[in-house]
Amino acid sequence: MNIGIIGLGLMGGSIAKAVKKYSIAKNVYGYVSRESTKKEVLELGLVDEIMDLDALKEQSDVIILAIPVDAIIEMFPQFLDISKNTTIIDLGSTKEFIIENVPESIREQFIAAHPMTGTEKSGPKAAIDELYEGKTVVLCNLEKNENIHVNKAFRIFQGIGMRIVVMDAKDHDIHACYMSHLPHAISFSLANTVMGHEDPKSIIALAAGGFKDMSRIAKSSPDMWTDIFKQNKKNLLSSIEVFEKQMQMVKTMVENDDYEQLKKWMIKANSLHEIL
Amino acid sequence: MNIGIIGLGLMGGSIAKAVKKYSIAKNVYGYVSRESTKKEVLELGLVDEIMDLDALKEQSDVIILAIPVDAIIEMFPQFLDISKNTTIIDLGSTKEFIIENVPESIREQFIAAHPMTGTEKSGPKAAIDELYEGKTVVLCNLEKNENIHVNKAFRIFQGIGMRIVVMDAKDHDIHACYMSHLPHAISFSLANTVMGHEDPKSIIALAAGGFKDMSRIAKSSPDMWTDIFKQNKKNLLSSIEVFEKQMQMVKTMVENDDYEQLKKWMIKANSLHEIL
Repeated sequence: MNIGIIGLGLMGGSIAKAVKKYSIAKNVYGYVSRESTKKEVLELGLVDEIMDLDALKEQSDVIILAIPVDAIIEMFPQFLDISKNTTIIDLGSTKEFIIENVPESIREQFIAAHPMTGTEKSGPKAAIDELYEGKTVVLCNLEKNENIHVNKAFRIFQGIGMRIVVMDAKDHDIHACYMSHLPHAISFSLANTVMGHEDPKSIIALAAGGFKDMSRIAKSSPDMWTDIFKQNKKNLLSSIEVFEKQMQMVKTMVENDDYEQLKKWMIKANSLHEIL
Repeated sequence: MNIGIIGLGLMGGSIAKAVKKYSIAKNVYGYVSRESTKKEVLELGLVDEIMDLDALKEQSDVIILAIPVDAIIEMFPQFLDISKNTTIIDLGSTKEFIIENVPESIREQFIAAHPMTGTEKSGPKAAIDELYEGKTVVLCNLEKNENIHVNKAFRIFQGIGMRIVVMDAKDHDIHACYMSHLPHAISFSLANTVMGHEDPKSIIALAAGGFKDMSRIAKSSPDMWTDIFKQNKKNLLSSIEVFEKQMQMVKTMVENDDYEQLKKWMIKANSLHEIL
């Protein structure tokens, strides 16, 4: 099949490499809006051909939207004239708001997917062919899709080595919030805690593995993450509140010198790793 | 020289391996209080000989305390009869409270050190010979030490490939708080946020790199970390308050749909990585 990819940053560029590597696509077409990105994509050889949107819509059996979540919704009007046989897959980190906004006329051919993978890097140069291998992809509300489209999505995601999990969009948005959106809010906050100190440089001179791990995702793209926080606002706010209660708890235990309780609380945190 | 190590978990076991690897020690002696640990240490061959405390004190040129921070202070009375030529080095994560509690009669021979390295693992089996290589060790308040002891500490830490940073204990405790103690409090809190959810298993099924990194140090030893939080109480509480303000900030920006401000705040967080 021919696969058209819209957006060739970390996620789109990596899927372009993966579908080539596993010979899933006969041709991989790309569409990018920025001229500078176009040049980079061509130099890196991520796709067989860069096209304008109309040509890509006409020649692709599957179109993959690998752009920020707000941009996905903004593009919908441009797919209203697409063939019924073309599958559209989005890779956005939020699912409920996107699904609510899919025009009814393309709903059956629109597959809502979220690959649970990524790095803190972005842009075409960040693309790596093993990004998806062995990772989980969540597909949401498939009962609304026609089988031919579901099958094409399965062929691609299984073909690049992913574990497929099917889930309701509402549940996905809660789970993804705890596993990804809340951790990003925390990591950005930790980075800004340190950057707000009068002398961040001499503090960071002592950074070791723990801090590096905790602040890694604070390097993530502000454009992408602003949209995700916006679209998953409700879940994010309630998860922050649950997390804040835990921070208040540790503060209270230390303030009150309640170290027996503190140790029990740490033992409970340890237990996460029995199921992780 | 002969090096005696008290406590042969991750830190002590790894330094035992490192001083052997780089031929810094002629003999490495070990002292452990628990019988079960003793057996493990011998099976792993971490030291040349396990000794009782009196023998270790007599035969070591340098004694390294690689035990939890409260245990370090509890041991001080047992060093009052030690030779003036024996260097004592502690590897604790807090420095001010330990230094305040060093008996005056051994102050000149007591080197307060904090190697900024570790993993989330603990116990003799966690010991690895490259734990210290290329990492930073902070030495505090060296003006109180005699040169022969400072020189021995330098020989050991440089010899195992560490970068030495000299710092006042007060500053160390603030810096270590931001780089290590606060991140641990956050990671434990994030783990307990998820473990407190009604269905942690199905949430964790979607865990990817971001969450794994953010929760890794929540696996750390509760015994060790309770003591660290206790000894660095004042700095920990104020750093948690600074961090909580950042969490409140992200909550307020999302609540008020102030996404321009949110993006700026994320861009500021990104800038950490220009100096990290």
